[in-house]
Amino acid sequence: MPALYILSAAAKKKPDAHQDPLTPNELIQVQTLIKISHQNVSFHYVGLDEPKKPEVLSWLSNHQLNNRIPHRLAFVIARIDSKTHEIFVDLSDNLVVSDKVYNGHGYPLLTFEEQTAANELPLTYAPFIASVEKRGLKLSEVICSSFTIGWYGGKRTKRVLKVMCYYIDGAVNFYMRPIEGITATVDLDEMNITGYHDRLMVPVPKADGTDYRESTQDPPFDTRLKGMTVFQPDGPSFTIDGHSVRWANWEFHLAFDMRAGPVISLASIYDPEKDERRRVMYRGYLSELFVPYMDLTEEWYYRTFLDAGEFGIGLCANPLKPLRDCPENAVFMDGYFTMQDGKPAKISKVFCLFERYAGDILWRHTEPALPGDTITEVRQETSLVVRMVSTVGNYDYIIDWEFKQTGTIKVTIGLSGLLAIKGSVYTHKDQIREEIYGTLLAENTLGVHHDHFLSFHLDLDVDGDANSFIKTNLEPVHVNKKDIPRKSYWRAVNQMAKTESDAKIKLGLGASEFLVVNPNKKTKVGNYIGYRLIPGSVSSPLLSEDDFEQIRGGFTKYNLWVTPYNKSEKWAGGLIVDQGHGDDTLAIWSSRNRKIENKDIVLWYTLGFHHVPHQEDFPVMPTLSGGFELRPANFFEHNPVLKVKVPKQVKWPNCTK
Amino acid sequence: MPALYILSAAAKKKPDAHQDPLTPNELIQVQTLIKISHQNVSFHYVGLDEPKKPEVLSWLSNHQLNNRIPHRLAFVIARIDSKTHEIFVDLSDNLVVSDKVYNGHGYPLLTFEEQTAANELPLTYAPFIASVEKRGLKLSEVICSSFTIGWYGGKRTKRVLKVMCYYIDGAVNFYMRPIEGITATVDLDEMNITGYHDRLMVPVPKADGTDYRESTQDPPFDTRLKGMTVFQPDGPSFTIDGHSVRWANWEFHLAFDMRAGPVISLASIYDPEKDERRRVMYRGYLSELFVPYMDLTEEWYYRTFLDAGEFGIGLCANPLKPLRDCPENAVFMDGYFTMQDGKPAKISKVFCLFERYAGDILWRHTEPALPGDTITEVRQETSLVVRMVSTVGNYDYIIDWEFKQTGTIKVTIGLSGLLAIKGSVYTHKDQIREEIYGTLLAENTLGVHHDHFLSFHLDLDVDGDANSFIKTNLEPVHVNKKDIPRKSYWRAVNQMAKTESDAKIKLGLGASEFLVVNPNKKTKVGNYIGYRLIPGSVSSPLLSEDDFEQIRGGFTKYNLWVTPYNKSEKWAGGLIVDQGHGDDTLAIWSSRNRKIENKDIVLWYTLGFHHVPHQEDFPVMPTLSGGFELRPANFFEHNPVLKVKVPKQVKWPNCTK
Repeated sequence: MPALYILSAAAKKKPDAHQDPLTPNELIQVQTLIKISHQNVSFHYVGLDEPKKPEVLSWLSNHQLNNRIPHRLAFVIARIDSKTHEIFVDLSDNLVVSDKVYNGHGYPLLTFEEQTAANELPLTYAPFIASVEKRGLKLSEVICSSFTIGWYGGKRTKRVLKVMCYYIDGAVNFYMRPIEGITATVDLDEMNITGYHDRLMVPVPKADGTDYRESTQDPPFDTRLKGMTVFQPDGPSFTIDGHSVRWANWEFHLAFDMRAGPVISLASIYDPEKDERRRVMYRGYLSELFVPYMDLTEEWYYRTFLDAGEFGIGLCANPLKPLRDCPENAVFMDGYFTMQDGKPAKISKVFCLFERYAGDILWRHTEPALPGDTITEVRQETSLVVRMVSTVGNYDYIIDWEFKQTGTIKVTIGLSGLLAIKGSVYTHKDQIREEIYGTLLAENTLGVHHDHFLSFHLDLDVDGDANSFIKTNLEPVHVNKKDIPRKSYWRAVNQMAKTESDAKIKLGLGASEFLVVNPNKKTKVGNYIGYRLIPGSVSSPLLSEDDFEQIRGGFTKYNLWVTPYNKSEKWAGGLIVDQGHGDDTLAIWSSRNRKIENKDIVLWYTLGFHHVPHQEDFPVMPTLSGGFELRPANFFEHNPVLKVKVPKQVKWPNCTK
Repeated sequence: MPALYILSAAAKKKPDAHQDPLTPNELIQVQTLIKISHQNVSFHYVGLDEPKKPEVLSWLSNHQLNNRIPHRLAFVIARIDSKTHEIFVDLSDNLVVSDKVYNGHGYPLLTFEEQTAANELPLTYAPFIASVEKRGLKLSEVICSSFTIGWYGGKRTKRVLKVMCYYIDGAVNFYMRPIEGITATVDLDEMNITGYHDRLMVPVPKADGTDYRESTQDPPFDTRLKGMTVFQPDGPSFTIDGHSVRWANWEFHLAFDMRAGPVISLASIYDPEKDERRRVMYRGYLSELFVPYMDLTEEWYYRTFLDAGEFGIGLCANPLKPLRDCPENAVFMDGYFTMQDGKPAKISKVFCLFERYAGDILWRHTEPALPGDTITEVRQETSLVVRMVSTVGNYDYIIDWEFKQTGTIKVTIGLSGLLAIKGSVYTHKDQIREEIYGTLLAENTLGVHHDHFLSFHLDLDVDGDANSFIKTNLEPVHVNKKDIPRKSYWRAVNQMAKTESDAKIKLGLGASEFLVVNPNKKTKVGNYIGYRLIPGSVSSPLLSEDDFEQIRGGFTKYNLWVTPYNKSEKWAGGLIVDQGHGDDTLAIWSSRNRKIENKDIVLWYTLGFHHVPHQEDFPVMPTLSGGFELRPANFFEHNPVLKVKVPKQVKWPNCTK
């Protein structure tokens, strides 16, 4: 039975307010309520408990008629007396509705506070101090960093981290200066070092010229370009009302989550022909990020991270730097997360929104063949970008959700930041006679081979929530008919997926298109109304299926999966992933092979990068981008931007600089 | 023996002047010289005969020392007395150096003049007039268009076209209103109709709402966005000196060719560390464009076009529309081609060049872990775009060559314009019981399935002309060792191609990287200096290998080919392609399996699109883009933009709109 309460004035104005992330006050409310029944609580995740979809849909369809709105609940993962709790708090009724101890494998998101504490431990740990002295290094110049350890077949494990240290000694770019050969294991509940091994000595890379700060650069410099800016004298064409964003024909809700980062909800597009707002995506977000390194040595083998579930894509988000991370015409939004003690903390400017005009062409045609003058009709492409940047240790992930007037949603992930560098005895490739698991980038400096797999949860509701998934195969046909000079062509054959196994797809094999359609709605001429996924990468994992990290990252086995909507199936790598056994992943859920035809379905796409480092990636990586598009496919009766009005031309201001 | 002459003052200033396209005066000089020995000449191609590469390289290496430059020669393909001539004209010595009759299969580029003449023929041809009347259409509203007929196994064929007609009747978008069922064959030498077949009657689509002109649109309109412009108060950061372009660390030569369109030559990048200008690409251009349709009916089967060789990508280029095709900060260049009578004609604004700042991030990192303040360093991405748009009948191809400060060259092809529409008896999908070879887009309107394959000639000279091609395979390795918890990883294995067959690559199978390296030069730590191709598409043809159009488009069999440089191997589909037999294509040249290791090599990449039309593509297509990147890979010792200077910040002008 849906829990409902009287709609606030705010919610009346914003029918999508029930999707808003928890406010600072609500976070304090959560802290207060939980502290009533528990002394020492360590908060590892606090976020909005996604409202029940049926309630939301019924509310949206008739909130004009009544004024009741789904309850707001918070979901909490906390550590209490060395146990993991899953707690639900009803913010409307101001009470804890459930509090369960989690007895499964694995541990929750790490907090900053415990990572910081763990990083301090080696600096007062005698054996480590000895190791530092043995290497002739100054302890005062050592800085340490924490790494999750994955799972390698053990039964119950304690909640531990491995701590690796680096040698600053004036170098800002300490990731380029690993102190190799040492592994320190920290028990997070005890917060002490429970394992220590100094296996071998490797020179600390000099890391000359790796300081990336503008202020400290010496000549020679690259050519300096002249100034350039985007000028919008009348301001932006989008409006932000709380978390509701409106731009062109689009309307969507943008929320910040400490695990997923940006969450796009209730994306709909206004169709002028039908004079109605049509649903496209109920919810879309980055569900998990799998980053396995390809080095089997004692200090590296375990580096097979699930960044969202272990470190938090949102938690690692940065305040965006105006004019640098986002252009001058950007508008910023703040985000809030919970600190270990339950207090709310703010990330200023965690999102930016801006209109992008890159000089691209929306559509065009030149027609010289008609009597009279040549016709040339061109429309410029302007889009709306929502950006967040998350820095998970050394790596920087630039996450762009881009909305286009055509109805396309384009997601682009930019990889920048610093490589995970391994110290090496080698100073030249010719010396190398063994497997080094990477590229020699500079003296004593290895860039280790690794992958990035990003799994996107795409709950499309194409013109309604009952959808189907279609794989359109382009099949070669051989013909042998006297009256036909051609011997071959290809035809498009639609396969509608009936169960989950029909929609497990490895890309790169054969020519296909992938559509989510509404099988209950057709265009005037009878095509299914749909959206098409245009994948940007066909990369698949190269690890053995039975390898432990690949079991945890099992969602990468296929580039595409389709599941029936299930409120509890949010995280492709599982809810509790640190040291988890991969028993709560997309691959497991999907093995039930449930029906997915004409149902509320979720499309999961995994974007993959294999990274063989090159010297250009050192000491900081030029952005490498990849992504995908969701493009309307027979969703509209015809080109939806045929009648787009050309924006008023802005004359270059003729005034003093 | 290299022919040389005294360097003009201009050439002294611009050492790459020998790459300049023919000037109007030079085109007249060509016409005059050829007309001396021939009465009736029809000029089908006139362009610069690419100077001999060894001469160019020696000239570039020591033009400071002497003042001699390679001769300028023109290459001409002409029709004289119903024969195809290949003529070389020495512009320096002002004489025809060779004039050979071409006796092979096929015919040259079509001229506008003969297409126009052919299009007029049906309108005075009694059987066609009867066909029009039979359909109850007004002859005055009929417009016709020419189509090359391909080759379907015949021996010697005459030089013919097929003409298809459309019904305007007030409709600007006549491609949406085909008069189906009629095939008229035109002999171009006789310029009369030699074949005619009215096979069946199909309703002409109403094509309601297909007028794409802004001036004629009726409400409802899409939301109008507010004005936005790029503002560069100090002007652009690039300089154009004749055809030499300089921007940031880049320098290259940009020429217009009536067949290829934009030709990028002598692209080099300045390396501040080495304080030297380093060669990257000797020449790059779109070599051929294969567009086979997938309809086997009498009126459509032969539509398997080779746009560059049959219609001319450059010849079909449009004057770019300021503020629409290119942003406000764009600078334009003109281009010249030869008309059928040999007179020069100008395409104004055939190229635009502009700096793109799309709000993207060149590189970034946030470092919170250091003592003191958090470091956030971000550099914005600005690039230089060179654009041309070619409209081959109904289709518009947007061709962008983009140069980045990182050393990356990115090529993007945008597909827009109008679909090739086929008339149909069907008004709803439910009526269809047969193969219709396409998608029903509107009443009586089919969008026919087709492909676009674009083959790029990429003569990379990575730090010199002796290069090798390396395929780096990411190979899964299974391990089974007690002391290693991991069971698998992947390693990077380099395969250096020795002969052409080693470098014939179908993409999409397995994980690999593709590099052109200079095997004679290494970085300080011993990596080969190289450039990496990052393909944007893995599409391959689905036609039978023994099918005639696939023989002509044989260069599409592999996505990648590498050939030893050969001045005569310019056009992937052959030099003379209209009705050709595919006996002079990349596939044939490459079958010799020549040595390509440590040689001057050319990389050929084919970018493919399979196009299943959707209703959004009707009546004009929102741009669909694809492309590839050439990215430095151990070309630089480290990130070449580490020290890039942030452009002076432009304050938004505070002045009256």
